[in-house]
Amino acid sequence: MAITVVGSVAFDSIETPAGRRERCLGGAATYFSLSASFFTDVRVIAVVGEDFGRRQEAVFQARNIDTRGIEHTAGKSFFWEGSYLENLNEAKTHNTELNVFAAFEPKIPEAYRDSEFLFLANIDPVLQRRVREQMPDVKLVAGDTMNYWINDHRPALLEVLKGLDVLLINDTEARMLAGNNNLVQAARAVLALGPHTLVVKHGEYGATAFFSGKSFTPKTEGAQHHPFRAPALPLEEVVDPTGAGDSFAGGFFGYLASQGELTPAAFRRAMFYGSVMGSFACERFGTERLQELTRKEIDDRFILFRELTHLD
Amino acid sequence: MAITVVGSVAFDSIETPAGRRERCLGGAATYFSLSASFFTDVRVIAVVGEDFGRRQEAVFQARNIDTRGIEHTAGKSFFWEGSYLENLNEAKTHNTELNVFAAFEPKIPEAYRDSEFLFLANIDPVLQRRVREQMPDVKLVAGDTMNYWINDHRPALLEVLKGLDVLLINDTEARMLAGNNNLVQAARAVLALGPHTLVVKHGEYGATAFFSGKSFTPKTEGAQHHPFRAPALPLEEVVDPTGAGDSFAGGFFGYLASQGELTPAAFRRAMFYGSVMGSFACERFGTERLQELTRKEIDDRFILFRELTHLD
Repeated sequence: MAITVVGSVAFDSIETPAGRRERCLGGAATYFSLSASFFTDVRVIAVVGEDFGRRQEAVFQARNIDTRGIEHTAGKSFFWEGSYLENLNEAKTHNTELNVFAAFEPKIPEAYRDSEFLFLANIDPVLQRRVREQMPDVKLVAGDTMNYWINDHRPALLEVLKGLDVLLINDTEARMLAGNNNLVQAARAVLALGPHTLVVKHGEYGATAFFSGKSFTPKTEGAQHHPFRAPALPLEEVVDPTGAGDSFAGGFFGYLASQGELTPAAFRRAMFYGSVMGSFACERFGTERLQELTRKEIDDRFILFRELTHLD
Repeated sequence: MAITVVGSVAFDSIETPAGRRERCLGGAATYFSLSASFFTDVRVIAVVGEDFGRRQEAVFQARNIDTRGIEHTAGKSFFWEGSYLENLNEAKTHNTELNVFAAFEPKIPEAYRDSEFLFLANIDPVLQRRVREQMPDVKLVAGDTMNYWINDHRPALLEVLKGLDVLLINDTEARMLAGNNNLVQAARAVLALGPHTLVVKHGEYGATAFFSGKSFTPKTEGAQHHPFRAPALPLEEVVDPTGAGDSFAGGFFGYLASQGELTPAAFRRAMFYGSVMGSFACERFGTERLQELTRKEIDDRFILFRELTHLD
């Protein structure tokens, strides 16, 4: 089943202890769609400027990602500059230029309308909601957000949450959104805002999924209320953590969309695939590792994740 | 097989968001031995003052812990006062009084000498080494340490590490000991100092074991080189994290000692039992939860930990 994703397609300048890259292809929708493309068909909605050319387009084409929903306008693409020099777990933002993104009005191509899965990457909740409203019949909607929207655009975000099945955020964001430092209590508070599933990403420690009990489908209602935790792979070298969370979301949602039924077992495997894709994303700068990845490498790492956590 | 443990038996005054307790029974050897006593015979070596009376002794007796190695001397027992008001993951120490511990000379009772397992809880590495040297024939030696010994008593600590099979420390301590912020690289550096296994505790995120490849026994040599990660249980309320790490060590080492063979499979289960015991310790103040615990509760939670992490 196909996924439509709306989010940023951008250029990033990144500095980490491993080096520096200028204006490499980035953005949440880029990482998400490259990652999800290993599992299912992906369709992107975004806006780019004149600096987005054939070379960038080719990255999407190589993974058979549908880019008809990427609008090209006059001006420059979204640009982010950041570093991870003191702490690989947290980016320090040096510069953000919205550019063409400032006037972004998401339009959904006719060919995207039969997508059964919708992912609302981290953008203005007003835009997330507009896309959600234009695709009322999707089977599953997941989304991401960040501290800025949680703190300064809360009412708009709360509206989006009402229409989400799955929210993927990190520890700090979950605690901030709930106003509660205990993760279990915070999860319960967030689940009361709309989503039936909350995936909290812990960076190098993996991710935990919390369930409201509404579960995915009537068939599995109540089947799994206790949380599920996927590990992260202890990495010899984290070259660049940019996009790891979006790559997690892509692996997670891509695998779910590739499955016929949304069972708790499929969900657990989706958490593992998410963590697998997040680990690959960190191994090289920007999207470099995702571009050269093979499905065999993904499945081999899945087995490694199983060995990392399973008793037998 | 029996475990001998050397470490502190102390009184703690603790403040957490859940409340405050004055001078409750504590100390690394106390938490460790209560926790390990659910799995195997435990023998304690420590020193206490005149404030350690029948009530404290009864806590050990109730769990059939051998206390003949607890020396009673004039003066007051080791005392620690701390709080976790801002951060439940890190204690803020307000007061430490070594008292009778300042002149502690560990003596090993004759009845302890056939112990096949030895645990060196977090005390002065000079004392750890003296105990280690008096028990040269044990089958497996594990130990703990802390930032103070790593930074200010490094040469003595390095001597201890040479005689350890398993070192259990937290993330910060592992990075500090190795002088390397990458956990995988830090683990390799620590394993080069002596222990064949390093267990790094991540607090609310669980624990990861790293192996040098020397493994436990010649039989399993090279059988398991990749790391193993045990989860922690997301807790509704962390009442008091004091002793969680020592309780982890007790469950981990206690389970290992209860097993006939030190196989990789036994080791993985030991990691889970460690995490299980750490989670119980946090549920009430001091050793309260460990005192009232049953083996059935432990095994039920073990099953919960499996469900928390296993795909099928």
